[in-house]
Amino acid sequence: MILLTGFESWGDVSSNPTSELVKRLASDDVVGEVLPVSFRRAGERLEELIRELRPEAVLNLGLAPERPVIRVERVAINLIDARIPDNDGEQPVDVPIDPNGPPCYFSTLPTREVVEALRGEGIPAFLSYSAGTYLCNYVMYKTLRTLDVMGLRTPAGFIHVPYSSEMASKMDKPVPSLPLSTLERAVRIALDVITSSSQA
Amino acid sequence: MILLTGFESWGDVSSNPTSELVKRLASDDVVGEVLPVSFRRAGERLEELIRELRPEAVLNLGLAPERPVIRVERVAINLIDARIPDNDGEQPVDVPIDPNGPPCYFSTLPTREVVEALRGEGIPAFLSYSAGTYLCNYVMYKTLRTLDVMGLRTPAGFIHVPYSSEMASKMDKPVPSLPLSTLERAVRIALDVITSSSQA
Amino acid sequence: MILLTGFESWGDVSSNPTSELVKRLASDDVVGEVLPVSFRRAGERLEELIRELRPEAVLNLGLAPERPVIRVERVAINLIDARIPDNDGEQPVDVPIDPNGPPCYFSTLPTREVVEALRGEGIPAFLSYSAGTYLCNYVMYKTLRTLDVMGLRTPAGFIHVPYSSEMASKMDKPVPSLPLSTLERAVRIALDVITSSSQA
Amino acid sequence: MILLTGFESWGDVSSNPTSELVKRLASDDVVGEVLPVSFRRAGERLEELIRELRPEAVLNLGLAPERPVIRVERVAINLIDARIPDNDGEQPVDVPIDPNGPPCYFSTLPTREVVEALRGEGIPAFLSYSAGTYLCNYVMYKTLRTLDVMGLRTPAGFIHVPYSSEMASKMDKPVPSLPLSTLERAVRIALDVITSSSQA
Repeated sequence: MILLTGFESWGDVSSNPTSELVKRLASDDVVGEVLPVSFRRAGERLEELIRELRPEAVLNLGLAPERPVIRVERVAINLIDARIPDNDGEQPVDVPIDPNGPPCYFSTLPTREVVEALRGEGIPAFLSYSAGTYLCNYVMYKTLRTLDVMGLRTPAGFIHVPYSSEMASKMDKPVPSLPLSTLERAVRIALDVITSSSQA
Repeated sequence: MILLTGFESWGDVSSNPTSELVKRLASDDVVGEVLPVSFRRAGERLEELIRELRPEAVLNLGLAPERPVIRVERVAINLIDARIPDNDGEQPVDVPIDPNGPPCYFSTLPTREVVEALRGEGIPAFLSYSAGTYLCNYVMYKTLRTLDVMGLRTPAGFIHVPYSSEMASKMDKPVPSLPLSTLERAVRIALDVITSSSQA
Repeated sequence: MILLTGFESWGDVSSNPTSELVKRLASDDVVGEVLPVSFRRAGERLEELIRELRPEAVLNLGLAPERPVIRVERVAINLIDARIPDNDGEQPVDVPIDPNGPPCYFSTLPTREVVEALRGEGIPAFLSYSAGTYLCNYVMYKTLRTLDVMGLRTPAGFIHVPYSSEMASKMDKPVPSLPLSTLERAVRIALDVITSSSQA
Repeated sequence: MILLTGFESWGDVSSNPTSELVKRLASDDVVGEVLPVSFRRAGERLEELIRELRPEAVLNLGLAPERPVIRVERVAINLIDARIPDNDGEQPVDVPIDPNGPPCYFSTLPTREVVEALRGEGIPAFLSYSAGTYLCNYVMYKTLRTLDVMGLRTPAGFIHVPYSSEMASKMDKPVPSLPLSTLERAVRIALDVITSSSQA
């Protein structure tokens, strides 16, 4: 069983396609969870889920506004630098996520294989080396840290998706996007690669 | 019957989604034509088609590399300023398309209605006020000029589409795109609006 | 004597570098005028200035947010499509600037020479074929229309400048810019080319 | 004494503003070095310089094409993923820089103070959390690794500059840039902040 997470809305993003993706992709084999945009609550919930579910893999999703392609993240850094407050009003600046953790973790998903599989299916995708310094990077680091502390070798990582075209079509300036159906297909392909890889 | 045109490949664009769109959308009611990337030959072919077919409306399609949305063009200017040669090796700079024509034509399609219809269907679309100074603007101007000279009030205009995601997935840098199926849906919606409008 | 115009602030732009440029460049040979962001008042003031001053040339300046280079505009269209209200609260949509005017005017400045001169001095500059559909295009069209109606052959046109680096350094997201001193140098070069050209 | 490094040309970049910056800023207090675009040779040269000079601080410079602002890098990762070969024809993919090193290093420069100082002087600057996976990241990691292995607490880090306007003015598409004189002023300000900070 795979744990798949997304996010509720944040900042000036009125809706977040990853919450819809998580709902669409939840199944017998996939536990979907929409995380709060709160450092404290998202972190606690992630730890709880990992301890309870002992998933075979973890894939966290997030929205990367104004990016034109699927970005498979490779690095999570041990730092929060919040440009805006989270939904609890917290805005840590230059604070480590875990004072006892390493400066960064690399994704333990087969990131290059995921990118190749997406491109092979006609979906623009690239490796990325920064998940930012806000909730997305936090969730990625927290997941990898939790697994590390528990001594588990569970593959885990993060994928950033662009705006859905449905969101972009409501905006008053032109922004890059992909249809929600394409984003859904992309996450399905990623889950397939992760599953095949972890069973191999 | 509507005349729908696209383009063959040009410059560093190895394939042009508009040639595929034209093939997919050709039907009993839509005559599809892939135009050469040649000022002389494209212009002659357009005139010929308009005189022979006497279409109820003309929709020219072109590719706008690196643009994230569907762009419904409103203005064609009486000028060629070619940054690169066409496929015949011609590269006119600061030459009028028709020395006897007006400085520009406005699209006679229901451009705002097309944009609204696309956005209503979740497809990001905007009005645009420049079709460039190369083949796209040329074809738009030539079409409107030909109809004007013939004394016809046939609605005519131009739509720029972004890269297809299928093309973008082969590129070595991230670029905005929409899936070919979305582009196809967009052109269908545009044709519906144009048809409804010209019958009203 | 040359008439040089800029704009006061508008929309979410807290300051407009063109008002500062106009102040810096005013001299015995250059009458500088900061226009209001009001279709009605800017239009009236322009007509008044042209009738009173009978300038040898007119150069209108405006800000093009998020553009990385100097843009020498070549086309002004006979259309207003205001995305936001002007400073008088007016927001015309799809209204011609002058119902009796031609669909567009081409700049009568030596636009290509200005671009070449700027590039020769290490300042990034390009020809542009759309000045938008708001105040900038309006002022360009209105100037060319007024001169045309008066039967004058005075060279006139519009240059869009990017954000000044001084403005960009106060923003909370990375945007392209050039230092105010570079923008000032660019306008001086443009004025020199225009003066030399109109005397030739 | 501060060690300041830049790069010679690479890939499709015909000239690199950082080699010129290094020459301009070399002084009694600043040793300037233009590094080769070669993983092996740049790494060896850096180690050599640090061991011989024992500088009080190290500032590495690099070019970030198409970026609009000064980027003060905060993170160097232990990974090479070269999209193109270096000038020796080497193109490592998914190879650690140092198999014995930590997954990443944080810059030990006062990065936030540098950004604030630049912005205070009207120069657009931002913190950045990825120096890429090519020579720039390599040089930053290698510097921090070398100092770490030697047991030194010398402040060290990396700044990415945009294209110089002089370069951008020769290009055939619009790209963001800042004048070389602004880039020079930016590096001077950074060196001042670093010097004041390391003496404090």
